[in-house]
Amino acid sequence: MTIVRQPTRAGVRDAAAKIAIILPPTPLFTSEINGVTVAFKAESLQPVGAFKIRGAWHRLTALDDAARRRGVVAFSSGNHAQGVAWAAKRLGIPATIVMPADAPRAKLDGTLALGAEVVRYDRATESREAIAARLAEARGATLVPSFDDPWVIEGQGSTGIEAARQMAAAGLDAPAHVVVPCGGGGLAAGIALGLGDARVTVVEPEGWDDMRRSLEAGWIEPVGDAPPPTACDSLQTMRVSPLTFDVLSRRGVEGVAVSEAETAAAQRWAAERLRLVVEPGGAVALAAVLAGRVRAEAGMLVILSGGNVDRAAYARVLAG
Amino acid sequence: MTIVRQPTRAGVRDAAAKIAIILPPTPLFTSEINGVTVAFKAESLQPVGAFKIRGAWHRLTALDDAARRRGVVAFSSGNHAQGVAWAAKRLGIPATIVMPADAPRAKLDGTLALGAEVVRYDRATESREAIAARLAEARGATLVPSFDDPWVIEGQGSTGIEAARQMAAAGLDAPAHVVVPCGGGGLAAGIALGLGDARVTVVEPEGWDDMRRSLEAGWIEPVGDAPPPTACDSLQTMRVSPLTFDVLSRRGVEGVAVSEAETAAAQRWAAERLRLVVEPGGAVALAAVLAGRVRAEAGMLVILSGGNVDRAAYARVLAG
Repeated sequence: MTIVRQPTRAGVRDAAAKIAIILPPTPLFTSEINGVTVAFKAESLQPVGAFKIRGAWHRLTALDDAARRRGVVAFSSGNHAQGVAWAAKRLGIPATIVMPADAPRAKLDGTLALGAEVVRYDRATESREAIAARLAEARGATLVPSFDDPWVIEGQGSTGIEAARQMAAAGLDAPAHVVVPCGGGGLAAGIALGLGDARVTVVEPEGWDDMRRSLEAGWIEPVGDAPPPTACDSLQTMRVSPLTFDVLSRRGVEGVAVSEAETAAAQRWAAERLRLVVEPGGAVALAAVLAGRVRAEAGMLVILSGGNVDRAAYARVLAG
Repeated sequence: MTIVRQPTRAGVRDAAAKIAIILPPTPLFTSEINGVTVAFKAESLQPVGAFKIRGAWHRLTALDDAARRRGVVAFSSGNHAQGVAWAAKRLGIPATIVMPADAPRAKLDGTLALGAEVVRYDRATESREAIAARLAEARGATLVPSFDDPWVIEGQGSTGIEAARQMAAAGLDAPAHVVVPCGGGGLAAGIALGLGDARVTVVEPEGWDDMRRSLEAGWIEPVGDAPPPTACDSLQTMRVSPLTFDVLSRRGVEGVAVSEAETAAAQRWAAERLRLVVEPGGAVALAAVLAGRVRAEAGMLVILSGGNVDRAAYARVLAG
């Protein structure tokens, strides 16, 4: 893909204005952690169960009529797929989604229910990028990347602007420190752009903390050859993008990694204390705060980025 | 207890205005059931995880200064307990809660965390009414019933007014048919008063459907001697009250009963489709619609009344 431009703060504000027309704000909740009131942005309660709907909407609405007619193609393990499918359906744009054969059933069903065509591939032997690029070329369709795209990053960043408005309306401190789950870094980069005064910490699963290592090193380092298994299917990104890395690097963002056990504990906490179903990848920022890897402080905003669980796996986590 | 007055529609409107000042509206979601868009009011997302906070707030704010100083007493398996404890804490009123020894741990912990004094009793051998009455008398405290009270009924009714406003703002049909979980009937009676034009259906667990039988008979019939076990701890009311029965009876409300399996299926549906943790008693109205005992129709509003689950039991339901 040709990078046509950098994402901008003005773009995030524009995205927030556009998204406010089509989607009501997701709820903001507060709860105490270690005696400090922390705010939680429940992106798990978006119509497709994740923030991805924001970037997809901002990207697809920027397409001209000819591009809309040729359609869009996306590859995703699920949440981005549903976001693109949702936006495409609303806009009458044909959507083809390339999904791994082992994607959680709920995410596959959700994508199909939104009317998208789904092309499945084997995560171990096939390249989703190649399949998606081939499909896009054959059809003249626009490829919608899940994070390596300025519109997508700006769209996701609307999460932060929306949350900051809700925190102000609730009489809370302005967001001083935002803790964000990180796969490719689109959500974190968008929030870092949109909330220029807030400290941002990105959170990844252990062994998949390539953004953390990259930010520490000052250049992009991919995930290693044999990363450990993780329940965080939505954060299994092998390499971040220059677009997201550059934004986070310039802002001095730091990363932390959380264990699978810490993520599971956060899912249990969210179910009992917030009565929210949060998927593993959506719970890592909460996990970092609960485990003390990031210290709870006034003005803290924790993003719960998704709630599309595999029910059997989720039941095992809750039983733990 | 002396009944001092009947609950009124004006009282419900007054409660809604008072509650809007202290509590943000709980989220309203929509989803399709059998091709029909149904609205869901997520009272499970209240700060204490249930609608009970509404009636408690309306009741406690109606107490004069002398009564506030003497404190309040309530008996409850959990959700009403937390509602009264929350309101009492906010208002600086001492609260004593009589809870069964087998109340779900989450509800007990939640009540204690809100600073209430908890007195436990054995559900099989002791009378919570007698214990609560004795405590209230000894202290000169005000007994706050969980449903047999005009203020409590009016407060719960604010749920319907709030939801109707949200449905209008979302461009949905006005509530034409409200489906409501029913223990003692406070929530249903309040909603029936507040939304005078809507049809109301109350839903109870099989074997605990005394309100359904009472409405059919035209007089109050208690639950039988040996009701079956139910996961719906929040709906285990042995006899409804003249206050709630009269309101529902005058409105021509009907009742339906749902099985334990139907309730569990509704909890699974809520987790997967709405990403919400809903307790058994909070899921019975959804269960009735999903099971086809109440037909989904335009303008349908389903109340998800609570989300305080016993985690181990909830995990078993999700695994099912």
